[in-house]
Amino acid sequence: MRDRIRVVVLGTGQMGSGIARQILRTPGLELAGAVARRAARGGLDLGRAIDLGRDLGLAVDADLEVAIARARPDVAIQATCSRVADAREEITALLRRGIHVVSIAEEMAWPAARAPAVARELHALAVAHGAAVLGTGVNPGFVLDLLVVVLSGVCADVRTITATRVNDLAPYGPTVLREQGVGLTPEAFRTGLADGSVVGHHGFAESIHMIAAALGWTIDRIEESREPIVARIRRETPLVRVEPGEVAGCLHTAVAWRAGSPAVTLVHPQQVQPHVEGVETGDTIEIAATPDVRVTARPEIPGGLATIALAVNAIPRVLAAPPGLHCMADLPPLAAIGADVRHLVEAARLRTEHRRG
Amino acid sequence: MRDRIRVVVLGTGQMGSGIARQILRTPGLELAGAVARRAARGGLDLGRAIDLGRDLGLAVDADLEVAIARARPDVAIQATCSRVADAREEITALLRRGIHVVSIAEEMAWPAARAPAVARELHALAVAHGAAVLGTGVNPGFVLDLLVVVLSGVCADVRTITATRVNDLAPYGPTVLREQGVGLTPEAFRTGLADGSVVGHHGFAESIHMIAAALGWTIDRIEESREPIVARIRRETPLVRVEPGEVAGCLHTAVAWRAGSPAVTLVHPQQVQPHVEGVETGDTIEIAATPDVRVTARPEIPGGLATIALAVNAIPRVLAAPPGLHCMADLPPLAAIGADVRHLVEAARLRTEHRRG
Repeated sequence: MRDRIRVVVLGTGQMGSGIARQILRTPGLELAGAVARRAARGGLDLGRAIDLGRDLGLAVDADLEVAIARARPDVAIQATCSRVADAREEITALLRRGIHVVSIAEEMAWPAARAPAVARELHALAVAHGAAVLGTGVNPGFVLDLLVVVLSGVCADVRTITATRVNDLAPYGPTVLREQGVGLTPEAFRTGLADGSVVGHHGFAESIHMIAAALGWTIDRIEESREPIVARIRRETPLVRVEPGEVAGCLHTAVAWRAGSPAVTLVHPQQVQPHVEGVETGDTIEIAATPDVRVTARPEIPGGLATIALAVNAIPRVLAAPPGLHCMADLPPLAAIGADVRHLVEAARLRTEHRRG
Repeated sequence: MRDRIRVVVLGTGQMGSGIARQILRTPGLELAGAVARRAARGGLDLGRAIDLGRDLGLAVDADLEVAIARARPDVAIQATCSRVADAREEITALLRRGIHVVSIAEEMAWPAARAPAVARELHALAVAHGAAVLGTGVNPGFVLDLLVVVLSGVCADVRTITATRVNDLAPYGPTVLREQGVGLTPEAFRTGLADGSVVGHHGFAESIHMIAAALGWTIDRIEESREPIVARIRRETPLVRVEPGEVAGCLHTAVAWRAGSPAVTLVHPQQVQPHVEGVETGDTIEIAATPDVRVTARPEIPGGLATIALAVNAIPRVLAAPPGLHCMADLPPLAAIGADVRHLVEAARLRTEHRRG
């Protein structure tokens, strides 16, 4: 094992750049390269590409195979897309070389939810090449699923789970705003839902499957609804202005039915500036069980920063995990990496060897 | 593997009885026996011993070896004591037979905190006999340690951790009330601290070590303080009456120093009926990091019920764990056992085999 863990980041957008910068700040980790999907970014200095404010003397690669051959990474963090179908090719290429993968693609939190065949294929490939794959991110991957599973540990006889995440879209870019219908008329929002341009939250099915698998529940069906959040007061960010009567975001809800009753209800209204109309942001998890549990994060766990931290904090756990496809609920918790990751990696390595006999 | 997991419970006090009753309610688990330390309980019908309201046609054993030979358990839950020194003999006897152990002894949450030699010995014994040992419970084991570690996963560059648990001792028995100094004069409280009869919370060192190990932190020293919580208004429970000027409980605080600064501050005032003086119960975790995280459970996660649930929910995880001594932060999360534990155990078994090659 080398002195430092070599990491390659796929994606140089907001998430990929934040992850790359965090790797540079973390002793024990080495940013060995970055891969951009946009060919125009190839050759750009990596420091510049990730808004570091200084050059790194290392160029962004536009070709994954070239990057792998050059950077010889131990682990790759994939931050290029949301869907399994779109992530598959990159993850496959990495696993074939025995490189561990952390993906922040939302659907990778539980890829079998929408792509069971691909999930099986990735698992088999990972096992064959001695590598581990983990999907993570703030949500899915943490707030509305892992945290629910962790809190359920203090419960017996769980009857229902209700979890709500109220956040502010103001820090997000144009793609996210568009997918939530921000700035549309209510009519255009309905049309957008019908033609797929308004999608709401990516991740309810993934979260519900993760919870159900952990609790040993069989889910009969999942019902989702998406409603426009119509502004009553003007809301304005550098990217968008929403007038009264226009859409400030999407109230997306999922209800999972089990044995004829609603068992898991996930509520995720995403909008710009909810505080303008007196709505406080926050995450709330309520489990009706013995005992009842009610936990709140106020304000909400910040999405972008949390996803960046989770992706980096996942590195020691993924290195120590048995080969195969994993979800957040079947690995030990990802702790914040402290001053030095080396002892964690060493401990992880010893543990892995011990496990593998 | 048998159709059901055979469980023996050590201890028929409030916790042991609650755990035994929960095992009886959980499909996939079989209550194979119970062991009482008090010889007078030996031979008592187990149903009667655990306040089930009906006989079970199975006698409580007063001898652990006899119980093991008769019950042939897969796993034992130890609920007899708080200290490693006191738990060691029972755990050793179980491990020698290859029986997995879940202990709710507070010090078993991180036994190396006070008994590093015993911790090493138990680990070696567990490995030698292919069994796993886990210490769990609401606190230490969950609120002021595991939950902190889990939440740290969304953080980078953690600076400080502050966690507070405000609970009500009203549901607890005379031993707990005595150890918190409830009903004493402030002078008698001070004397009790000096002679060791007033102890405050068992578990700060364990929680701090678990957090530090997960985050890769080196702790220089831990400073603890115990102050009497003096009632200003009369507080009264079926077991105790506290007049104004008398002690309603113990404000126990621990500060862990790292690199010259306070890094982890744990605050745990335990008293009867805090609401009488307008104090709301609850658990709060604050992590100063990127991003900051602030999470609250309100009311607090109920101690007794949560410990019972954790002990039972630990069973599938302990069966699936590699041989050795584990803490809550190095196993995958204990989820609430659902309608049936068998598929979890099967999945756990397959995973274990896979890991062991």
